[in-house]
Parts: sequence; structure tokens; C-alpha cells
Amino acid sequence: MAKQEDNFKNVISHAKEYGFIFPSSEIYDGLSAVYDYAQNGAELKKNIREYWWKSMVQMHENIVGIDAAIFMHPTTWKASGHVDAFNDPLIDNKDSKKRYRADVLIEDYAEKLNQKAQKEIDKAKERFGDAFDEAQYVTTNPRVMEYKAKQREILERMARSLGNEDLADVKALIEELEIACPESGSRNWTEVRQFNLMFGTKIGASADSSMDLYLRPETAQGIFVNFLNVQKSGRMKIPFGIAQTGKAFRNEIVARQFIFRMREFEQMEMQFFVKPGEEMKWYEYWKETRLKWHLSLGLGRENYRFHDHEKLAHYANAAADIEFNFPFGFKELEGIHSRTDFDLKAHEQYSGKKLQYFDTEENKNYVPYVVETSVGLDRMFLAVFANSLQEETLEDGSIRTVLRLPSVLAPTKAAILPLVKKDGLPEIARKIVEELKWDFNVAYDEKDAVGRRYRRQDALGTPFCITVDHQTAEDETVTIRHRDSMKQDRVKIAELREIIANEVSMRNWLMKM
Amino acid sequence: MAKQEDNFKNVISHAKEYGFIFPSSEIYDGLSAVYDYAQNGAELKKNIREYWWKSMVQMHENIVGIDAAIFMHPTTWKASGHVDAFNDPLIDNKDSKKRYRADVLIEDYAEKLNQKAQKEIDKAKERFGDAFDEAQYVTTNPRVMEYKAKQREILERMARSLGNEDLADVKALIEELEIACPESGSRNWTEVRQFNLMFGTKIGASADSSMDLYLRPETAQGIFVNFLNVQKSGRMKIPFGIAQTGKAFRNEIVARQFIFRMREFEQMEMQFFVKPGEEMKWYEYWKETRLKWHLSLGLGRENYRFHDHEKLAHYANAAADIEFNFPFGFKELEGIHSRTDFDLKAHEQYSGKKLQYFDTEENKNYVPYVVETSVGLDRMFLAVFANSLQEETLEDGSIRTVLRLPSVLAPTKAAILPLVKKDGLPEIARKIVEELKWDFNVAYDEKDAVGRRYRRQDALGTPFCITVDHQTAEDETVTIRHRDSMKQDRVKIAELREIIANEVSMRNWLMKM
Repeated sequence: MAKQEDNFKNVISHAKEYGFIFPSSEIYDGLSAVYDYAQNGAELKKNIREYWWKSMVQMHENIVGIDAAIFMHPTTWKASGHVDAFNDPLIDNKDSKKRYRADVLIEDYAEKLNQKAQKEIDKAKERFGDAFDEAQYVTTNPRVMEYKAKQREILERMARSLGNEDLADVKALIEELEIACPESGSRNWTEVRQFNLMFGTKIGASADSSMDLYLRPETAQGIFVNFLNVQKSGRMKIPFGIAQTGKAFRNEIVARQFIFRMREFEQMEMQFFVKPGEEMKWYEYWKETRLKWHLSLGLGRENYRFHDHEKLAHYANAAADIEFNFPFGFKELEGIHSRTDFDLKAHEQYSGKKLQYFDTEENKNYVPYVVETSVGLDRMFLAVFANSLQEETLEDGSIRTVLRLPSVLAPTKAAILPLVKKDGLPEIARKIVEELKWDFNVAYDEKDAVGRRYRRQDALGTPFCITVDHQTAEDETVTIRHRDSMKQDRVKIAELREIIANEVSMRNWLMKM
Repeated sequence: MAKQEDNFKNVISHAKEYGFIFPSSEIYDGLSAVYDYAQNGAELKKNIREYWWKSMVQMHENIVGIDAAIFMHPTTWKASGHVDAFNDPLIDNKDSKKRYRADVLIEDYAEKLNQKAQKEIDKAKERFGDAFDEAQYVTTNPRVMEYKAKQREILERMARSLGNEDLADVKALIEELEIACPESGSRNWTEVRQFNLMFGTKIGASADSSMDLYLRPETAQGIFVNFLNVQKSGRMKIPFGIAQTGKAFRNEIVARQFIFRMREFEQMEMQFFVKPGEEMKWYEYWKETRLKWHLSLGLGRENYRFHDHEKLAHYANAAADIEFNFPFGFKELEGIHSRTDFDLKAHEQYSGKKLQYFDTEENKNYVPYVVETSVGLDRMFLAVFANSLQEETLEDGSIRTVLRLPSVLAPTKAAILPLVKKDGLPEIARKIVEELKWDFNVAYDEKDAVGRRYRRQDALGTPFCITVDHQTAEDETVTIRHRDSMKQDRVKIAELREIIANEVSMRNWLMKM
């Protein structure tokens, strides 16, 4: 755990030091749970977005992409259920004046019971050594059984109370468990109230025409309200998909874990419209296809797992997460949801307009079912970045920090380095920059010894370093150094473009899927 | 004028019918001055953004791009002057309850005087024919001189009053001119008040930690607050630039002209940091360079002009617009501003932190001067789209609607069309799609007669139609039809990739700059 935390701290500080992510408005001491993508982060983020878009839109004849506004008519969020149900239950401590999520307080308490049980198990394990049968111990040791039973009971009661909107019982539970405020230590609590996570604003200036708006909490609804316009103007035939990337906003009470849970974040979503009854086939198809997309980046099969939801959201009849092994453990990276016809029907009801598809083969109208794939762009960034940041001990005992980004996503594809700052080498290097920059993001660097420049490019994730030396002037060759292996080859300048393209082109990476 | 209006209506309806732009949340009867980019619009917009980014960031060794959040610390907008000065003067009519921009009411009145003068001039022109000397007439005819003098007087007084924050005099002027409410016809006005154009929201849930935020009204400040972090982590040397694309929000009172002035819009900005005293050199450089970028798209030199600002914003010591000939006349498309050190100094003052650059050559610290280039992505879209939409009469007398988009920006690069839906032609066509889709956005279409499919692709702006016919099965050739000339060539399937790439690749278009 301590190691994990250290790793995570390392990720955050590397992201800042090397120009990937800065805290937002840092000169004003930052804004909680909001981050800015710096010069290298902006490129990495753009490349992830483009890799997703190409694989979803360009590669699929029956998927198109749109770009709906963040502002939407407020009735949208009435229909989607967000106005009524997109809430967190909050409670204030009257002494510390601190506000908490009531469910998180209870979950933390339950987790402590779990840890107590685990401690008993660990002790027994130590005592009995190889002979220890954990499965049997857990189902027979009275203390462990009691902790586990209590934990289950608490969580079940909380789920029941929240489900029934019985907030008084949520408070009663907190009191019965004698949960104290982590800050003041006091048990002097207010009532539990629901707090909506949408950010509100007002549009329009005049008294009679101004309107309460929300910043969209998800991009999906922008697709649903445009469903028929896209289908008609694009003459789309079911099954077909509408994809979108864009910002969404949630006023999270407990926002944490760096860019994993931010108040302003970006989604990459695709809603796939299918014939009712065929949704499970497509749900399975998209689970598999999306996992393949992730695997194509080469971060390691062992870092992904599916988590099928047992508790389903009100709109879904099946749902699964693709979880990734983040620095703080396996967490949701992408969701695949079979959303039924819930959203389209709700928009029909609230708008009074038909949102039906005429199926020429079946010769009838119906409201399509929807299978959604939804991945957080910032989470993808964190997954790729954290997984790629590695330290390795070289043969000479020195430590090398290397950001092994998938080369297709690397911000800079090649750095061109004159060995020394004289003898015409900078001029040759700059000429190579001028030739390559039409096709790739390249960098020029002449500062410091070449070894240090290599290490700097390793830390930035640059797949290739191209070094111009005295031999270059004679025979038009350079050395090309590979980030991961540190191997150097001597090649013709004229070959560089093809070598780099082969390694970094999206075309080649997508072909691996 | 009537023709212009018709043209503009045509642009708007074409944008909807062919899946470029939909009114936002249309099923809920839309949201004023907010639009969604539909399936073809999203691609066109993405291509414009990418063309800008490549030319600014990838092509310039000393320019990097960032992606700052929409949410920023609120003090940012205090420092930038937006909290105090980003206002419109509003006035309400007590009878109609309608709200107006006081300055627009007055400007409209002044414009009527101008039109009266023009009427006199037109009448005289008709009377005197070729012998008419307009310049002389304008400076001697008493009626024309009176109209013009009155117009000037009104605008000068308004500018003076607004400059002095003398809102009572703005109201007095409206009363003296007897301006009536266009809706009710009444002159029963409230006081004039300043109305801030920023959208507000609240972040955080707890009573003591929640904070009033604004949605950023411009992206520029996201660059200024990150200036030093970027410079240090990127080891940038002056002169250097930081570029950014992203959403900004302004609660416009009078939002109109389709996507020209929206409440939610996207900017493409670059702030170039220079040594104090060198800003005019760079200001001229960027005026020229940015115009070249626009011209590279081939929309016609005659559609652009510079407009140098006489009245400068508080932060600028020189400013010019690149104006474009929109369907409603020449209007600002891009601004180039010499912003001095105003913003960085203001942030130094409000944050208490130094935002200085250490110049190793001069061996001293200074706050850099800034030259900004700022173009509206939505305005670029409108410029390109409206200019490209053309109707032409063919030899047979029929009308062809063709969207002559610069092929580098076209949403779909090629449509693959089987001549008929049988004899194995669809299979061959689909095989071509499978080969080309790795490199280009391509479409497959087998519906309707091939002539109609050509016209549909013309209306979508697709540069190439590739038709598979019976000969294709025999000799692996297809016809390739060019959108603009409608010329058809017979070529080998194996040649297609290169033909399309030569025409549409950003590399080739950027080389024209």
C-alpha cells in the first residue's frame, strides 16, 4: 500500500515536472478537483481522443460522430432522471461545519469491519503457515464471521434506506454506529439531505426570458435528443451508432485521486441503436470490441478485467465495467451499458415528439434499444500514463526513468539532437526537423550532453532520438535510438520518415485490433 | 440585401438537411443561440481545428499547445478585468417587459440617419447620372451633411457616456432621441444598468467551502496563468507561443446570425511571448502569417480584409481583425492583438507571484509582452461552409448544388458507389471501403440511381466519388469523379489511395502556405 501510494505520488509529480498535467489556476493556489493539461499532456490527450474516434467512427461504416453543445434545454435533464435522481446524500457535522457524503461515512465504517476481519485472517495465516485453509477459517471463526455479517448488514440497510429515500434511517444508522466526524471527533450531525450533482447556471438576461440551465453531467443525452435528426439526415439504418467526445461536469463532493474523478472531465461515448430484442447480442459484441481496443495499446492483458454489475441503474438491463489496474487498484475505466429504450421513451414523453425508427425490413415503427460504450478520456490518460511510467536499473547500476507510452500516443514522435553545438551539426539537425515536421510532432534539442538529452526524452515518452554527428555530414546517416531498448541503429536520413511512420501511425496500431 | 438574406437562409437549411448543424435540443424547441454539430459538421469542425493546430503547433518549433480547464479560479477574472468590465448596458421597456442593449438601440437609431443620408445620395445619383460626384455632394448637400453630423454626434456622445460609466446620460440620450420599444412602441424605459456577460455557477457542496465560479469567457487566461509552468517544464526560450483550442461562454443579450455569435462557442488562440519592445515586429509577423493560413484554404483573396482597430481595448497597444465576407457582409473572423504585459502583470498583482522570464542573453528578468492570435472555430466553420455552398447551372439547364469545401477539410474524402446493387458490384465496392478506411473517412452508398448519389455527395462536399461498374470485375479499374469539375477518370483500384492522399492530406495543404 505504501509502495502504491509512493508510485501514485511519483505519477503526479512526473506529470507536473515534465509538462503533462498542472493543477488548474495554480498561481491562485489551484481549484479543487480541476486540472489543466500542459504541453505534453494536451498532445497525449488529443492522441487518445483521436485513436478512439478513428477506431469508432472512421473504421465503422455504420457509426457517425457528432459534437453537441454542453448547454442543453433543461427539460432534457428532467427526462433523463438527473434532476430528480442524480443526488448524493449529504450530512454536516455541526461542530466542524464539514460536510460529508453520508453513504461514504457508512461505507468507511463497514470497510473498517472488513479490515478487522482481514487482520484476524492474517494472524491465523501466520500462526498456521502452509496448513492454513482460509476458506474454511472464514466460514467457521466466530469473530471473523461476526465482522463480516455486521458489515453486510450495515451495507444492506444503507442500500435499502437510500433506495426508499428514507434519509432519516440513514441518519439513524450513522447515530447507531456512533460514527464521529473525522475532523472534530463529534457526533453532532445535521439531518441527511439529497444534494444534486449538476452545476447550475442561468442563460439569457431579461427577467422574463432567462432560464435555469445545467452543465451537462454526461454527454449521452446530446446523442439521444439528436437521434432522429442524425438518423434522417444521414439515412442511417439500424443497427447504427452515434459517437461523441466532450466535456461533462459533476459537482462531486469527494473528488480525489488526481484526474481519476474530476469535477470537469471528458467522456468518449457511443450509443448504438438496435432492434429491440437484439440488445444482448450487441452488448456482448461491444464488451468484446472495446476490450480489444484497450488491449491494442499493449498495456498488458493482466491490467484489465470485466466487472458485471449486479445492481443495475434504472435505465439498464445489463451493464459491465472494463476495470483497469490503476495505481490505487482496479477501478472503472469504461462502462458498457444496455440502456434499453429508457432514454428515447423518456424524451418522447417529455417532448411530446415521436422518436421512432421506421424499419423497412419489418415494415414497422419502433423505439430502438440502445447499447452504450462510455469511457472517461481523463481516466484513459491516467491509465496510459501511470502504466507507462517505469523506473529501471541499468547495467551500470544507474536508474533510468522511462515513460513507455504506446508510440502511437506519444506527444513527440522523435527528437532531433545534434551531438555538439558546432561544426554545422545544429544546421543539419534543423534541416531534418524541417523535413519531418510535416508528418510528425518532432522536437529539436541541443542543450546539455547527449546522454542527458536521451534521458529527458525517455521521461517524456519520445519513441525515437535521432542524433546528428560528424559522420552525418559525410554520408547522410544518423543514429536512431529506440526509447524502450535504448538500442541505436545507423540509418540514412532519407529512411527516417518511413521508420517513424511504421512505428507510430494509427493505421498500423488499429490494424492490431 | 434580399438576395443575401436568401443565401443565408439557404446556408442554414442546407446545414440542417445534410447533417452539418442542428439547433440544440431541437425536440425541446431549441435553446437560443446554441447549436449542435451534426455528423458531417462534427467532422468538418474537427478538421478545421486540426488544420489550425498542425499549422500553429506542429509546424512551429517554438509553439506548444495546452488544454486548460473551463473552470478557473475566480480571481483569474478579477485580474483580467472581466468581473468589473465585461458588461453590456441594458435597458428594459416597462410595457413590453423586453430587455435591450442600450447601445444597440442607439446604434440602430444612428444607422437610420445614415440610411436617410444614403437615400438622398442615391436619389441624386439617379438624377445626375454619370456627371454625379458623390464625394462633392456629401460635403456640400445640407441635408446629407446634417444627417451625417447628427449620426456622428450621437455615436460620440454614447461612446463618451459609456466610457465614463455615465449610464444616466445613456438613458437621457435614448429619451432625447425619443427611441421607442420595437415591440410595444412605448417610450416607458427603466434605468440603464450594466449586465455582466459571464455565466456563473457554484462549485463544492459545503456551506463554508463552496465558491462562485464563472464559465471562462475566453480561453486566453488559461494560457496566462500557466505561462510560467509551461515555460519552465518545457524549457521554452523567448520568443515562444502557447496555443489552445476550447470552449468559452458568453451570455450574449443579442445573440444572432446562426453560429456567428453563440452563447457557447469555441476559440483557437495562441499567445506569443516576446521581449518588451519587439511586440510590433511580431504583431506584423502574425498578421501576415495568419492571413496566409486563411488564404491557403483557397476561399478567395477578395473575401478577406484587415480592419485595424482605432479604439483599443484597455490591454492592447495595437489590434487588427481579419474580416471575412460572410453572407451578412464583412465581419471579424480573427483578431490579432498586441496585449502588452497587461495580463501577466495583472496576474502578478492578484496572485502575489512573480510571472517573469529570465532572459539568459540579456541576463535579466522581465515580464514578457504578448501578441495574441484568436480565431473563432465556429466562425471559421461558417466562413468555410457558407463560401463553399454554391449553386450552378449545368449545360443541360439543371441546377447543381455543390459544397466546394477545401478537400482537406471535407468530412468524407471519398464515397464508394456500386453502379448497381447486384452482379457482385456491392461486394467489390465494400472491399474498396475496407482498404481505404484505414487512411480516410470514406462512405459507402448503394441507394438510388448513381446520378442522384453523385448529387448527394456534391451537397455533402465529398471531393471524390468512386464508382464500381461491370468493367471493374474484369480489369480492377473504377471511375473516379471529381466533385468540382465533375470530370471522371478511369483508374486502377490500386492507385486510389495515392490519388486521394495527394488531394486531401494536410501536409500538402500546409505546404501551400
